[in-house]
Amino acid sequence: MTDAQPRFLRPLKAPAENPGRTLSFGPEQPLVLDSGKRLSPIIIAYMTYGRLNAARSNAILVCHALSGDQFAASTHPVTGKPGWWDYAVGPGKAIDTDRFFVICANVIGGCMGTTGPASIDPETGQTFGLGFPLVTIRDMVRAQLMLIDALGIEQLLSVIGGSMGGMQALQWAASYPERVYSAMPIATAARHSAQNIAFHEVGRQAIMADPNWRGGDYALSGIHPSKGLAVARMAAHITYLSEAALQRKFGRQLHDRNALSFGFDADFQIESYLRHQGMTFVDRFDANSYLYITRAMDYFDLAADYGGVLAEAFRGSNTRFCIVSFTSDWLFPTIENKRIAHALNAAGANVSFVEIESDRGHDAFLLDEPELFGTMTGFLGAAAAARNIR
Amino acid sequence: MTDAQPRFLRPLKAPAENPGRTLSFGPEQPLVLDSGKRLSPIIIAYMTYGRLNAARSNAILVCHALSGDQFAASTHPVTGKPGWWDYAVGPGKAIDTDRFFVICANVIGGCMGTTGPASIDPETGQTFGLGFPLVTIRDMVRAQLMLIDALGIEQLLSVIGGSMGGMQALQWAASYPERVYSAMPIATAARHSAQNIAFHEVGRQAIMADPNWRGGDYALSGIHPSKGLAVARMAAHITYLSEAALQRKFGRQLHDRNALSFGFDADFQIESYLRHQGMTFVDRFDANSYLYITRAMDYFDLAADYGGVLAEAFRGSNTRFCIVSFTSDWLFPTIENKRIAHALNAAGANVSFVEIESDRGHDAFLLDEPELFGTMTGFLGAAAAARNIR
Repeated sequence: MTDAQPRFLRPLKAPAENPGRTLSFGPEQPLVLDSGKRLSPIIIAYMTYGRLNAARSNAILVCHALSGDQFAASTHPVTGKPGWWDYAVGPGKAIDTDRFFVICANVIGGCMGTTGPASIDPETGQTFGLGFPLVTIRDMVRAQLMLIDALGIEQLLSVIGGSMGGMQALQWAASYPERVYSAMPIATAARHSAQNIAFHEVGRQAIMADPNWRGGDYALSGIHPSKGLAVARMAAHITYLSEAALQRKFGRQLHDRNALSFGFDADFQIESYLRHQGMTFVDRFDANSYLYITRAMDYFDLAADYGGVLAEAFRGSNTRFCIVSFTSDWLFPTIENKRIAHALNAAGANVSFVEIESDRGHDAFLLDEPELFGTMTGFLGAAAAARNIR
Repeated sequence: MTDAQPRFLRPLKAPAENPGRTLSFGPEQPLVLDSGKRLSPIIIAYMTYGRLNAARSNAILVCHALSGDQFAASTHPVTGKPGWWDYAVGPGKAIDTDRFFVICANVIGGCMGTTGPASIDPETGQTFGLGFPLVTIRDMVRAQLMLIDALGIEQLLSVIGGSMGGMQALQWAASYPERVYSAMPIATAARHSAQNIAFHEVGRQAIMADPNWRGGDYALSGIHPSKGLAVARMAAHITYLSEAALQRKFGRQLHDRNALSFGFDADFQIESYLRHQGMTFVDRFDANSYLYITRAMDYFDLAADYGGVLAEAFRGSNTRFCIVSFTSDWLFPTIENKRIAHALNAAGANVSFVEIESDRGHDAFLLDEPELFGTMTGFLGAAAAARNIR
């Protein structure tokens, strides 16, 4: 494997700073996927924060969500904004980079440097597009394992993530229990619900309805299906918030005007906010990646691999678990998270469950939520103490 | 005014039977809109069921929702399906056409015969498109009042409707209290919430993102923005259901297959269901009408016309009210309906409030819900008895 700069998909804006590290895995290390297909070569783009200790025992893998990336705690190279988990990861923060070595990798199928549908298919010399094989949450975790192996880390002190990141944390604990000392899945589910599949399907149909999508082969044209992707993002964004938060933040307040326009401008603040969310997303995200990653989430059903019994996924596990949900999260509601905690209890695993009071919906896991950070600090502190990490 | 056949927008499928009655109002009877604009001439397409009694005292106005039309209780001329409220309206049913004269009119801005953006603009001789003036819920009610006047009905025994139909019922009671003996707003709100505006905005952006929309001027091209409208409908349709109903009805069941396809086909039943909802909707609905009617709902804020105090909208009203909500309706949740009931109480109005246990979400008002029908039967029966209607 070699270190190389990842290639960002055009016309994403140029990275403003170092886009991170990458590892390349050649033909001798193919990624064998759940679909049965083999992906090779692959590049994994990642970021690290803090220092790996001599015992290599202080590594924490942070797994990103659908629209996240490896820039958990550093300026995003495209948007110039702080990392998506800047509240949580850093010196002295809940995931304390003064103590821990934090790794965050762009998922397989992603668009920030890790091999995905915007990468070049070595067989054709062209962008994969829909020729990219479908990947699953387990495939994402397999790729992460290759990275962790390459970094010489025998056991992760913790795997932490929210939403799709939480799915990965669960999959890590199920597939490689001996490699995971502790896991903290946040605002997630062990299987994607019908309603969540439905919202994803709307997003995919919005992308596919955009004539610039061209069956996924838009790379050659140089014109991206930005309108479709923006609509997909807008629809998804509503599901990340709560009715109460929307009412509190926007209500029926008008945007830059004193009276209704009697037209289709963004009269209401919520409209201009949503339009902005859609428009800025297309600058940093690839439409085909959006299709692939939403599909991976839809396919996620951890119990299905264990005879339909979720507890079997964790039978005999020594991993410590902390499951976290938020009261106003209707995308990954408390009941879905409790289901995981129940299964872990049924499997005799070491598990704690915390429901955090917040009106900020699913997005709460990305926001400044002191109770989340307190929970993290306590959970990671206990794990570190048990592993003699100072 | 004259009776005429409504012109259905092409390429909607040809009506399978009588598309209903219409009334035309000429230049001497313009519709003066909230925007200040005047719309003239206008056509109102409507259906009636049952017979008006000699005292003209047994008329019930049924108001349709966003995607509804005048075919409440008769075969839809485009789809060939039963009327959207066939469960509720008919001989011996809750809204008993053996006793009552039921009127249902396509709203102004609609696409089933009433003047809307697909109508011909008399000033240009071309389809209105976005040249159609924005209409409000109050404008819809004003047009209905013209119809009721034309039918020689002094007072409606009741105005009943769900969702946007409930908004109209509220507006009727507020604007013309002496014309409304009773009102039954179901699964509705006195103002559209930020979240609901957000979902509507996604739908509108999906339509406007479709290049076939052509700034609203698609009529000339003959090609409709069907993909955009289908995506809008899919997104909206999710909001009409409940998570529990989706889980019960579809869960993660696969569609016409035994295993995941590892592709973007409709693997899951919920996907094929949603796609079907989108595809069939475009056969019967006009994309511009969808823009206008969603906008009318967004603009609805009844209290705003009364100094921000909802109770003032009903001060001194003699109308009897029955407010109905459904436990699993998250689009127009119980709390929004209770707010109406509280305002009516504060205004000293005659009001009852019923929350019906159902896991079918917002759509419950359109489905076979015995408790809803029992409530209707009781409420209408009491109103009829008070008015000496047999």
